[in-house]
Amino acid sequence: MTPPVSLLVEKPSIAQFNPPKRLLMGPGPGNAHPRVHAAMSLPQVGHMDGAFLAAAEEIKTLLRYAWQTKNAFTVPCSGTGSAAWEAAVANLTSPGDTHLVLVNGYFGLRHCDMASRYGANIVKLEKPWGEVFSDDEVAAALAEHKPDTLWVAHAETSTGACQPMANLGEMCRDHDCLLMADTVTSIGGLPVKLDEWGVDACYAGGQKALSCPPGIAPLTFGDRALRKMDERQARGEVTANWYLDMNMIKQYLVVNDFGVPRVYHHTAPISMAYALREALTILAEEGLEASWARHRASAEFFWDELEKIGLECHVPWEHRLPTLTTVKIPEGVDGGKVVTFLRENYNIEIAGGLGQLAGKVWRIGLMGYNSRKENAALVCAALRDALDAQGYYRAPGLLYKTRAHLRTSFHGSA
Amino acid sequence: MTPPVSLLVEKPSIAQFNPPKRLLMGPGPGNAHPRVHAAMSLPQVGHMDGAFLAAAEEIKTLLRYAWQTKNAFTVPCSGTGSAAWEAAVANLTSPGDTHLVLVNGYFGLRHCDMASRYGANIVKLEKPWGEVFSDDEVAAALAEHKPDTLWVAHAETSTGACQPMANLGEMCRDHDCLLMADTVTSIGGLPVKLDEWGVDACYAGGQKALSCPPGIAPLTFGDRALRKMDERQARGEVTANWYLDMNMIKQYLVVNDFGVPRVYHHTAPISMAYALREALTILAEEGLEASWARHRASAEFFWDELEKIGLECHVPWEHRLPTLTTVKIPEGVDGGKVVTFLRENYNIEIAGGLGQLAGKVWRIGLMGYNSRKENAALVCAALRDALDAQGYYRAPGLLYKTRAHLRTSFHGSA
Repeated sequence: MTPPVSLLVEKPSIAQFNPPKRLLMGPGPGNAHPRVHAAMSLPQVGHMDGAFLAAAEEIKTLLRYAWQTKNAFTVPCSGTGSAAWEAAVANLTSPGDTHLVLVNGYFGLRHCDMASRYGANIVKLEKPWGEVFSDDEVAAALAEHKPDTLWVAHAETSTGACQPMANLGEMCRDHDCLLMADTVTSIGGLPVKLDEWGVDACYAGGQKALSCPPGIAPLTFGDRALRKMDERQARGEVTANWYLDMNMIKQYLVVNDFGVPRVYHHTAPISMAYALREALTILAEEGLEASWARHRASAEFFWDELEKIGLECHVPWEHRLPTLTTVKIPEGVDGGKVVTFLRENYNIEIAGGLGQLAGKVWRIGLMGYNSRKENAALVCAALRDALDAQGYYRAPGLLYKTRAHLRTSFHGSA
Repeated sequence: MTPPVSLLVEKPSIAQFNPPKRLLMGPGPGNAHPRVHAAMSLPQVGHMDGAFLAAAEEIKTLLRYAWQTKNAFTVPCSGTGSAAWEAAVANLTSPGDTHLVLVNGYFGLRHCDMASRYGANIVKLEKPWGEVFSDDEVAAALAEHKPDTLWVAHAETSTGACQPMANLGEMCRDHDCLLMADTVTSIGGLPVKLDEWGVDACYAGGQKALSCPPGIAPLTFGDRALRKMDERQARGEVTANWYLDMNMIKQYLVVNDFGVPRVYHHTAPISMAYALREALTILAEEGLEASWARHRASAEFFWDELEKIGLECHVPWEHRLPTLTTVKIPEGVDGGKVVTFLRENYNIEIAGGLGQLAGKVWRIGLMGYNSRKENAALVCAALRDALDAQGYYRAPGLLYKTRAHLRTSFHGSA
């Protein structure tokens, strides 16, 4: 038996955990589906157990459906979306490569930071945050800079803009350049068609339109990306990241046809894998087209309701994401106070803007399980209350400004 | 509404998920505590929500207790144990640094691989797998190689050996060298006293003696480690890893005294943080000393029972981990078949050896929630059955070999 010991750090007294029940209507995480929570409580098995590897195979199959790709290399990464992102960068960047980065929001800047850490030369093509790039603009930049990789956010989570993707893959092929796409805020919530678009490397998050908690993240590489990995390996280049080394993870999660046994790399996040498997199963049960249509319908309802309470969207209708809406903070309104008001009075989470858009917009998500008319209506009711609390509808010059005001009385003031 | 579309990849048909109920007695993960599973179902909040940041502070306090450290920088990492490990390496290694690595098992080799990816010169001090290093051996190597970092596994998960740590910190200070320690398989299960030992950087896993599922991992840096980070930053060195950049994560998870607001880095794994918070609370409720004593008692019971069925441990008693035992596979026994037999007949997971010990030992864990007499007894009963199925107790020359055989009849053959 261990003899009694004196401890340098004494036992802390920690109360029972009781997190508030929030409606998560920010840029993610959204609320996970109740079935996903239940799946996390299923009996754990080991990460080398055939039962776990079978579940991993199902995840891969379901991810291919969600992303509309036939890529054999389609795996869950053992971290949040940014880990899958870094896995794409670390495994597909040789020092000295040029990354052409379409920067129209915060996450474009993150790619510049991340890729530069792996020795990439960064060339930015910039646009005001909230706008998207035309094919001509991208084609001209490809021709000018001859990059090894073109990075693009299909869904810019900081702006709510949706980048047209249809022609980018072909343009990249013409320039022998890999196309890497961020679909964190689009997968499951709007049409994402990796193979049709010719995307070579792609990552996503579970905690948005897939209704899974954060902690595991989809990653897929097409043939051209795998070829680049092989070429790097043949040159003796070692991926400058052990945890995310996909040459090693391939031996654990992607078996070839010859029955090569799985090789342990690291302990996979078992419960998170269960969660992702269930989330993707729910998406398949609903069907991609139905999920896309549901997201579209609740977003359009939300945009109409916003207009009724006098609020405008930052992104023009034709490039707006159904999953995430950036709403302009009206002049004279303290946006941060509105975020706090919603949290404190309604237990609703929405978020402010990032970077250039800080203080200028709110970011409001209608994602996955949360993408429903009742949530959109409730957020609008709460926003109207928050704005009224700041006197927005009664301010001199703003009186009678909104259609909503004409129809509704606040505090009997109309 | 979205018009009907034709999909390239059709909806897969996936059956309801029904993982087997295994008793996880391998090197980890172990079975999570039921309260930990329940915690993962609590309402999720956002990663910037005050309620989440408060939970993160509680995790930090509880980790300091579990590790017996006062380190301000003590955080949960958003990945499995290997991610926290790589975070220690990535943030504390300058290209050209020398890492002296105590290699007496598989995980020593992993450190060599990982640290070399960040530009470290690797010097290995090697011992047969299962042995430990004496202070004199380490002192001589420190004097000879003058490393910047000494890496050591307190608990070598591949061998079951426990490295004496008491004097390493002072020796490292004498040589102006950082002490980095792996406590993945020791935290919570046996005395770990980071400050008393003078450990500068340390990581652990949740899925062993903490009874948490894998997916979030403790990391702590002491003052000397933080100074090294500051010096690197002052020289303009950028950590060659974005996801695990602790200078950025510091701004999210470690606030100074001046009320600087938290800065978003990546979306934290919320449900896994809930799980770790609950697991650490359970440990604090039991008390460190009681948990250490429980692990010790069930391990000693297990070792006695192993002897009764004719099995020997690989590591001498005085350096044996109570959390993980390596059991020698007797001559003539197919170790892999025993692993399969236990899984198929008893729903018990144990593991084989890694590297040098592959085919030579089984690895059997008694960790956290699973470290109980009844589990030790059941594993021994299952092992005896598996060995008997291979004719071990009836083989010519082995008859009457074991004390167990003298007392117990198998298939009426005694």
